[in-house]
Amino acid sequence: MKTLNKYIDHTNLKPDSKQEVIRKLCSDAREWDFASVCVNPCNIPLAKQLLEGTTVKVCTVIGFPLGQNTTKVKVAETEDAYAMGCDEFDMVINVGRLKDGEEDYVRNEIAAVVAAAKGKTVKVIIETGLLTDQEKATATRLSCEAGAHFVKTCTGVSQGVATVADIKLMKANLTGAVELKASSGIRTYEDAQALINAGANRLGTSAGIAIITGAPKN
Amino acid sequence: MKTLNKYIDHTNLKPDSKQEVIRKLCSDAREWDFASVCVNPCNIPLAKQLLEGTTVKVCTVIGFPLGQNTTKVKVAETEDAYAMGCDEFDMVINVGRLKDGEEDYVRNEIAAVVAAAKGKTVKVIIETGLLTDQEKATATRLSCEAGAHFVKTCTGVSQGVATVADIKLMKANLTGAVELKASSGIRTYEDAQALINAGANRLGTSAGIAIITGAPKN
Repeated sequence: MKTLNKYIDHTNLKPDSKQEVIRKLCSDAREWDFASVCVNPCNIPLAKQLLEGTTVKVCTVIGFPLGQNTTKVKVAETEDAYAMGCDEFDMVINVGRLKDGEEDYVRNEIAAVVAAAKGKTVKVIIETGLLTDQEKATATRLSCEAGAHFVKTCTGVSQGVATVADIKLMKANLTGAVELKASSGIRTYEDAQALINAGANRLGTSAGIAIITGAPKN
Repeated sequence: MKTLNKYIDHTNLKPDSKQEVIRKLCSDAREWDFASVCVNPCNIPLAKQLLEGTTVKVCTVIGFPLGQNTTKVKVAETEDAYAMGCDEFDMVINVGRLKDGEEDYVRNEIAAVVAAAKGKTVKVIIETGLLTDQEKATATRLSCEAGAHFVKTCTGVSQGVATVADIKLMKANLTGAVELKASSGIRTYEDAQALINAGANRLGTSAGIAIITGAPKN
């Protein structure tokens, strides 16, 4: 079983972060051997450079945080990030289209991003805080049908945080080998452990160090 | 002098709006003859169709709301929106790069979007709520140097609203024929009038009808 540090996508998606903040994020991720750093697309080259030779992956976001750009632009953004060497792609679904019942639109868009990522890991942010339970189940199913590798709870920008109830609901609707990422509002070791116990395989958080150092000492 | 309705970009950028909500936005814009509807990129075709034959323009957002995608992707998004017939493009600057002092990066990115818009109106969202006064002045200057048509205050997603003080500060730093758009937190006729008196040439708001109907009766 993987250790707690390898659950963590060490995340900074703020619009106003200077590059020195991203440098610190990467050096912390290297020190604690997190699963990845999750950074905005403009910071991929810096993160790739700083994490070369480590097992820490570089993750970015696609169509973030509204998910309301066209499929064509989400694909272009994925291709651009791929060309910069990005390892993982966290895309936001089109919530409006999901609510309109346009399942083909939502599924095809995810599939197009999966194709553009050429086998690399795609996580689908369904933005649980804006969805009914039925919509969460549908979005999870569509993500699996489209070939995504993870379904993920929240952007952290719109309302809503990762909850144990949502992870359980999403887990109940997974098919195949698709995994779960909990994100938004994860601040403590206890938060992290509860979400992992509920089925989360990855945690998106800016509090990774607090989570690791908050673990009970044996 | 243009009438108050022609100051208003009638705006809905919510991630979870169904298409019926966008239809209502467009029919209201048609009825009140607003300057434009401002919608997310995925809704441009619907808005274009519904506003055909009117003087109401279709406006969209580029790199919205974080402004942290690469210049290449902002250009691709502008080209995609242009191809769908979009009339106006409200782009978000890279605030992190501005704070890093990378003036060439910020200016070149704006210029690249202006070029991709091929003469159509580009408004540059500087996200005042994240900036110092000095940074607001710099961002305004860079927008003018890059050939933008408007400088705009806020996304409405990050912190900050349009203020009279910011419009005055931005106006003092304009060069050429560049105009100003105030956006975020504009709810009443009085809000609108104060911003127009301070120098705003356009208002981004979801409260356009309340603003118009709140005007004093002569």
